[in-house]
Amino acid sequence: MFYHDKQLQYTVRVDTPSPVFAKMLQQAIGGVEGEIRVCLQYLFQSFGARGPAKYRDMLMETGTEEIGHIQMLATAVAMNLEGAPNFLKEAMAKADPMLAATLGGMDPRQYLSAGMAALPADSNGVPFDASHVYASGNLAADMYSNVAAEATGRALACRLFEMTDDPGMKDMLRFLIARDTMHQQQWLAVIEELGGHPGSLPIPNSFPQDEELTEYSYDFFATGIEGVDPPAGRYTEGPSLDG
Amino acid sequence: MFYHDKQLQYTVRVDTPSPVFAKMLQQAIGGVEGEIRVCLQYLFQSFGARGPAKYRDMLMETGTEEIGHIQMLATAVAMNLEGAPNFLKEAMAKADPMLAATLGGMDPRQYLSAGMAALPADSNGVPFDASHVYASGNLAADMYSNVAAEATGRALACRLFEMTDDPGMKDMLRFLIARDTMHQQQWLAVIEELGGHPGSLPIPNSFPQDEELTEYSYDFFATGIEGVDPPAGRYTEGPSLDG
Amino acid sequence: MFYHDKQLQYTVRVDTPSPVFAKMLQQAIGGVEGEIRVCLQYLFQSFGARGPAKYRDMLMETGTEEIGHIQMLATAVAMNLEGAPNFLKEAMAKADPMLAATLGGMDPRQYLSAGMAALPADSNGVPFDASHVYASGNLAADMYSNVAAEATGRALACRLFEMTDDPGMKDMLRFLIARDTMHQQQWLAVIEELGGHPGSLPIPNSFPQDEELTEYSYDFFATGIEGVDPPAGRYTEGPSLDG
Amino acid sequence: MFYHDKQLQYTVRVDTPSPVFAKMLQQAIGGVEGEIRVCLQYLFQSFGARGPAKYRDMLMETGTEEIGHIQMLATAVAMNLEGAPNFLKEAMAKADPMLAATLGGMDPRQYLSAGMAALPADSNGVPFDASHVYASGNLAADMYSNVAAEATGRALACRLFEMTDDPGMKDMLRFLIARDTMHQQQWLAVIEELGGHPGSLPIPNSFPQDEELTEYSYDFFATGIEGVDPPAGRYTEGPSLDG
Amino acid sequence: MFYHDKQLQYTVRVDTPSPVFAKMLQQAIGGVEGEIRVCLQYLFQSFGARGPAKYRDMLMETGTEEIGHIQMLATAVAMNLEGAPNFLKEAMAKADPMLAATLGGMDPRQYLSAGMAALPADSNGVPFDASHVYASGNLAADMYSNVAAEATGRALACRLFEMTDDPGMKDMLRFLIARDTMHQQQWLAVIEELGGHPGSLPIPNSFPQDEELTEYSYDFFATGIEGVDPPAGRYTEGPSLDG
Amino acid sequence: MFYHDKQLQYTVRVDTPSPVFAKMLQQAIGGVEGEIRVCLQYLFQSFGARGPAKYRDMLMETGTEEIGHIQMLATAVAMNLEGAPNFLKEAMAKADPMLAATLGGMDPRQYLSAGMAALPADSNGVPFDASHVYASGNLAADMYSNVAAEATGRALACRLFEMTDDPGMKDMLRFLIARDTMHQQQWLAVIEELGGHPGSLPIPNSFPQDEELTEYSYDFFATGIEGVDPPAGRYTEGPSLDG
Ligand SMILES: [Ca+2]
Ligand SMILES: [Ca+2]
Ligand SMILES: [Ca+2]
Ligand SMILES: [Ca+2]
Ligand SMILES: [Ca+2]
Ligand SMILES: [Ca+2]
Repeated sequence: MFYHDKQLQYTVRVDTPSPVFAKMLQQAIGGVEGEIRVCLQYLFQSFGARGPAKYRDMLMETGTEEIGHIQMLATAVAMNLEGAPNFLKEAMAKADPMLAATLGGMDPRQYLSAGMAALPADSNGVPFDASHVYASGNLAADMYSNVAAEATGRALACRLFEMTDDPGMKDMLRFLIARDTMHQQQWLAVIEELGGHPGSLPIPNSFPQDEELTEYSYDFFATGIEGVDPPAGRYTEGPSLDG
Repeated sequence: MFYHDKQLQYTVRVDTPSPVFAKMLQQAIGGVEGEIRVCLQYLFQSFGARGPAKYRDMLMETGTEEIGHIQMLATAVAMNLEGAPNFLKEAMAKADPMLAATLGGMDPRQYLSAGMAALPADSNGVPFDASHVYASGNLAADMYSNVAAEATGRALACRLFEMTDDPGMKDMLRFLIARDTMHQQQWLAVIEELGGHPGSLPIPNSFPQDEELTEYSYDFFATGIEGVDPPAGRYTEGPSLDG
Repeated sequence: MFYHDKQLQYTVRVDTPSPVFAKMLQQAIGGVEGEIRVCLQYLFQSFGARGPAKYRDMLMETGTEEIGHIQMLATAVAMNLEGAPNFLKEAMAKADPMLAATLGGMDPRQYLSAGMAALPADSNGVPFDASHVYASGNLAADMYSNVAAEATGRALACRLFEMTDDPGMKDMLRFLIARDTMHQQQWLAVIEELGGHPGSLPIPNSFPQDEELTEYSYDFFATGIEGVDPPAGRYTEGPSLDG
Repeated sequence: MFYHDKQLQYTVRVDTPSPVFAKMLQQAIGGVEGEIRVCLQYLFQSFGARGPAKYRDMLMETGTEEIGHIQMLATAVAMNLEGAPNFLKEAMAKADPMLAATLGGMDPRQYLSAGMAALPADSNGVPFDASHVYASGNLAADMYSNVAAEATGRALACRLFEMTDDPGMKDMLRFLIARDTMHQQQWLAVIEELGGHPGSLPIPNSFPQDEELTEYSYDFFATGIEGVDPPAGRYTEGPSLDG
Repeated sequence: MFYHDKQLQYTVRVDTPSPVFAKMLQQAIGGVEGEIRVCLQYLFQSFGARGPAKYRDMLMETGTEEIGHIQMLATAVAMNLEGAPNFLKEAMAKADPMLAATLGGMDPRQYLSAGMAALPADSNGVPFDASHVYASGNLAADMYSNVAAEATGRALACRLFEMTDDPGMKDMLRFLIARDTMHQQQWLAVIEELGGHPGSLPIPNSFPQDEELTEYSYDFFATGIEGVDPPAGRYTEGPSLDG
Repeated sequence: MFYHDKQLQYTVRVDTPSPVFAKMLQQAIGGVEGEIRVCLQYLFQSFGARGPAKYRDMLMETGTEEIGHIQMLATAVAMNLEGAPNFLKEAMAKADPMLAATLGGMDPRQYLSAGMAALPADSNGVPFDASHVYASGNLAADMYSNVAAEATGRALACRLFEMTDDPGMKDMLRFLIARDTMHQQQWLAVIEELGGHPGSLPIPNSFPQDEELTEYSYDFFATGIEGVDPPAGRYTEGPSLDG
C-alpha cells in the first residue's frame, strides 16, 4: 500500500520560466527514458517477483522513490509554464519574431489539453506507452533492463542540464542525475551478488547447456562482403565472459 | 513524496488459480477503465492543479490510494498464474481439449514476456497508453472525467465479478467495487460544492457568454431525414440545466 | 444509413491564413478532446445500444452532427494553410526570423503527408487512436463519458478562441462552443431522466448491494502521513449522493 | 453536413449468434483494412481536396456510404453477441471444453469494455489508429491508396465469408464484397480519366523530369549475391509504363 | 540471409547542415510513407509469399535495396545535425530570434534521445508503427499497396526537394525520387503480367462470382440529398474495368 | 548498402504445423524482445555512431545478421500455418472442441490480414512500435540496452523452446538461443573494453562530477514506513562500483 506526504523529494525552483524548457522536460516524464517508465518498471518487477523477497522489496523501495521524481518534474513543467497563457495570446497576435519563435518551441497540448501543466507524454507529445515497462520475471534480465533505463535516463538528464541556464532547473537536475548514478550501481550490484558475469551469463542461465547449439554461442558472425573485415575486439578474442 | 508499507490495501486471495481469469483481470490493470489510468489521472490532476489547494490535496490522497489498487490486481494476476508454466507445456503437447481451450483463453505474454506475472496492458495485451490520462486544468471538466473513469471502472469490476466463481477473487472485487462507489460520489461531491449544474455549467464557465452564439446553445439539432423524428426528452424540453 | 449535402453546418471563414493556427486546430479534430472522438463515441454508443430506443436514436442524431464538425474544422485547417507551400520554401531558404519562427510553429506533416490539409491527428501530430471511444453499454456511464468529452472539448475550443485574433476563426469557434454547451446539457439531461444521483448512482446500479462491501463505499481513505490531514469537503461529510 | 435515416444500407441478419465470429468481424470494422479506415480516408481526401470539385464530391459520396458499412458491421457484432453474458458465466464456471474453447476465441473487451457490442478495434483488440488514413493531397496517389484499401478490404471480406456458415452473415458479406468490387473500379476509373499509366506516372507527375536522376528511374537493382539472379519480368524488360 | 558492404547506395552530402531539415527528413525514414515501411513491407511480402517464386524473389531484391535507403536518410539526418549541440545551448541561452526559431523547428528527441542522430520516427516524432506493413498474401492487393506506398513516398520526396536549397540534399533526393519512379512501375508491371484490369479485378479474383451480389458491384451509390447530384465520370458510365 | 542470398542463416523445419505455436512465435518477431527490435536497434546505433568506427562497424555486422533472424522466424510462422485455412473453416463449422480450442489459440490476423503468414506484431497482435529502438548516442548506454534486449530475447526463446515438442522448431530455437548467448557477451565485451565498471560508470561519464550532487549518488533511499526495513545488499554496503 502507498502513502505520501506534502514534500517533494528535493526542492524544485524555476528562476526564469521557459515554456520551451517545459517542452524539453516532458521527455524526462513520459519519454521512453523517463520517470513514468522506471517507476512502473520497478513496481511491476516487484509486484511479479517470484524469487528472493530481498529483491522484490528493494524494487518496491526504489519504484516508490520514482513516483516522487515524476512529481518533481511535473512540478517543474508547471513552473516553467507560469505566465504562458498571456504569452501565447501575444505570440499569436503580434508579429514579434522572438515571441513567435518561442511559440514554435512550445508543446501546444501543455496549454490546449492540460491548461498549462505537464502531460504523461514525451517532448514530442507522444503519450507514454507502457510496453516500455520491461519486467521479464528473470532477475538478471530485469537488472540489465534497469541499468539500460537509468543509463539512457541519466544521458537525457545531462543533456537537459546542458540546455538550460536556469539555476533552479540546474539544481534539480543535479539531484536527479545523482539519483541515476546511484540507481545504475544499485542494479549492477545485484548482478555482482549473482556472481558477476560467470554467475549470471548467459541470461537466463537455467536453460540446459546441452540443449543449446553451443558451437554458435561464441562466434562472431561477419555479414560484410567485398573486403569488409569484421572489426576485432574483446568479442572476437579472449576467453568468453561467462567463463 | 511517496512511501509504502508491506500491506496490501485489502486481502488478495485466489482459491483456484485460473489463467483465463488472469487475462481478464488485465483489463482492470492496464485497460482504459483500469487502475493505472485513474492513478496517473488523479496524480497528474494534482501535480498540475492551479486552483484551491483543497482539491489538489484530495486528488493526491486518492491518486496514492490507486497505486495500491494496481498492486492488488497485479498480485491477483500472479496468483491466478500459479502453476501455469507446467500447464502450458502440457497444453501444447497433449491433445486434450480442455487444456487446449484454456491455452486459447490465456494471454501468451503473461508467460512469454513476464514469466507469469501481470503486464501494464489490457485484456487483449494492448499496452496502456497514457493519452487516457485526462487532466485538463479545469476542475469541473476533470471531475466529470473522473466520474466517467470510475463509472466505466465499476462496470468493468462488476462484469469481472460475474465471470468468476472464485471466492477469493469475488471478495477482492467486492472491495474494489465499493471503492469505485465511493470515488464516483467523491468527484460528484466536488461538482456539488461548485454549485451543481447552475454553478458549474457550461464547462468552463469562465468563457464570456456574450462571445458565445447562444442561439445555438440550447437547441437539439436533428440530423435525421425521411420521417426520422428527433426523440423527445429532457434535452429537448424544460428549462436548461445551467439555469 | 448516412447522407450528406453540400453545406457546412456553419460558415467557415478565415480572414488571415495562419499555418500556426492550422496546427493548433488539429487538437480539435484528432485530439482526445476532439470531434473524431465524440463522433465515433456517440455512433458506437448508438450502434451497440441495447436499452430504450429513444437514447439509441438520440445518440445517432448527435453522432451524425459531429461528422459535420470534423468537416468544419478540416475545412478551417485547409483555409489556414492557403499559400503555405510558397511560404515554406521561403522560410527554409531565407534567414528571416519571422518566417523561420512560423515554420517552427507548423505541423510538417500537414504539408509533407497531406499536401496542405488536415490530418486525423492532434496538435502534436499524434494520430487519433480509437481506444478513446468510450461506449460501455451502460447508459449512465456513457453519459458521464460524454459530458467529460464535451467539457474537455469546450475547454479546448475556448482556449483556441483565446489564441486567435482572426474574426472568421473566432466566429466558427463561437458556434462550436455553443454546440458543446448544448451537448453537455443534453447528456446531463439523460442523467436527470434516470432520476439524478439517487436514480443513477452507483453506476452501474444493477449490481446487488449485498454483494458489495458497503463499509468501504462511503469512506474517504487518507493516504497521507506525517501530519497530512485529508482535506475536508462534501465528500467527507453530509449524506451520500446516492441517498 | 451529414444526415441519417433509420435504415441500414443492407439487411443484417444473424441466424446463429457466434461470439467467435463477432471477434473476427472486428477486423472489418477497426482493422487496417476495415470500414473506419476507408470512411475517414475518403472523407479526409474530400475535405482537403484542392483539385477538381468533381473528385472532391465523389469522395464525399463514397465516404458517406462507408459510415453505413461501419454501422452494418457493428450491428452484426452485437447480433453475434446475443446471449453471450450468460454464456460467459457458464464458460468460466463449468469444465466443458466446448464452452471453454469458445471463450478462448472471444474478444474479452466486447464484454468487459463494451457490454456486448462492437469496438472500434481490430480482431486482436488493437484500437484503430488514424495514421492509416492516407490522404496525400495528390489525386493519383490517393486513388492508388484507395485501391489498396479496397483490395485488402475485399480480401478480408472474402476470408470472413469462408469462415462462416451462417446464412445471414454470408448474405451481408455478399453485399459488402460487391461494394468493394465497385469501389476498386471506381478509383481505378479515375486513373483512367487521368490518362492511365502514361497520363499519371510517375506520381506525382508535376516534378520536373530534368531534376530527377532518370538514369536510375528505369533500372531494376539486384541486391542478391552468390549467384542470385534477379528474376526477369515485365519490370526488367519492355517499354516503361509511363511511356 | 543478408549482407552489407561499406558503401552507401548513393552519395550523401550536406553542404550546410540544417537541424530543421533533419526533422523534415524523419518523415522519409519513419513516416507512414517512409523507407522503414517499404523495407519491411516488401520483406514481409517476400517472407510470406506462397505464390510464384519469381515474385517472392523480386520482393526480396527490392526489400533489401530499401534497407540502404533507410541508411542513406539516417546518414543525412546525422549530417544535418552536425554542430547542433553547441547550437542548442546558444539557442536556449540567448535572446536571438533566429536561433530560437531554429530551435522551434527542431525535433528535440534527435538530441535528447539519440544524441544527434536519426530516430525510427516521423517528422512529428511519432514512432514508426509496423501496422503499416501491408502484406496480405494476395499478390494483386500487395502490388497496389506497394504502388500506394511508392506514390505517397515520391510525393513526400518531391516535397522535401522543394523545401531545401542544399545542393547535397537535392542530389540525394534526385536519386531517391528516381528509385521511387522505378518502383512504382515495377509493381504496376506485375499487374500487367497478371493481365491488367481484366486479369486482376476484382481483387481477389478467386472469389466465386455467383456468391457475390453482383447487382451491387457496378453501381455508384449516391448519398447526397437536397439536389446533390452524383458527379459523373468514368466510374458512373462506360464498360466496367474488369471486362 | 545491403545484399542477400537465397539461404536462411540456419535451417527452419516444422515437423507438425501448429497454428497455436505460429501465434506464440510472433512475440519473437514483433514483440518488444523480438528480432525486428534488435535489428533496427543495432542498425540505428550504427547509422548514428559518432565515436570509434570499430563499434559502428561491429553494430552493422550484427544488425545485418538480425535481418536474417526475422526471416527465419517469419518462415517458421508460415510453415506452422500450413493447412490452416481448411482447418479454420472446419473449426468454425463443426462442434469439435479440439478444433474450436485451436481456433481460440490462433492469431486471427495471420489469416485475415496476412493470408497465413507472419505479421510484424507480437503474440497478442500488437504491431511493433519503433520507440523500442534504443539508440542514445552514448556507447555504454547503448551496450546495456543491447544486453537488456538480448537477455529478454533469450528468456523469450527459452520459454518458446519449453512450449513446443516439435523437433524442427526446437532445433531452430537452439540456434537462436545460441546467437543470443553470443550477443549478450558481445555487448558486455565492449563494456569491458571501456574499462568495466570503473571505466564506464556512471553513464555517461562525461558529465563533470562537480556539477553532480554526489552526496545523493551513493545512497540507498528507503521509502518504506511502519517497520519496513530497506533490504540489505551489495547496493547498501561496500565500495561503489565506479570506484
Ligand atoms: Ca529517477
Ligand atoms: Ca480504483
Ligand atoms: Ca462537436
Ligand atoms: Ca466498404
Ligand atoms: Ca525507397
Ligand atoms: Ca537475434
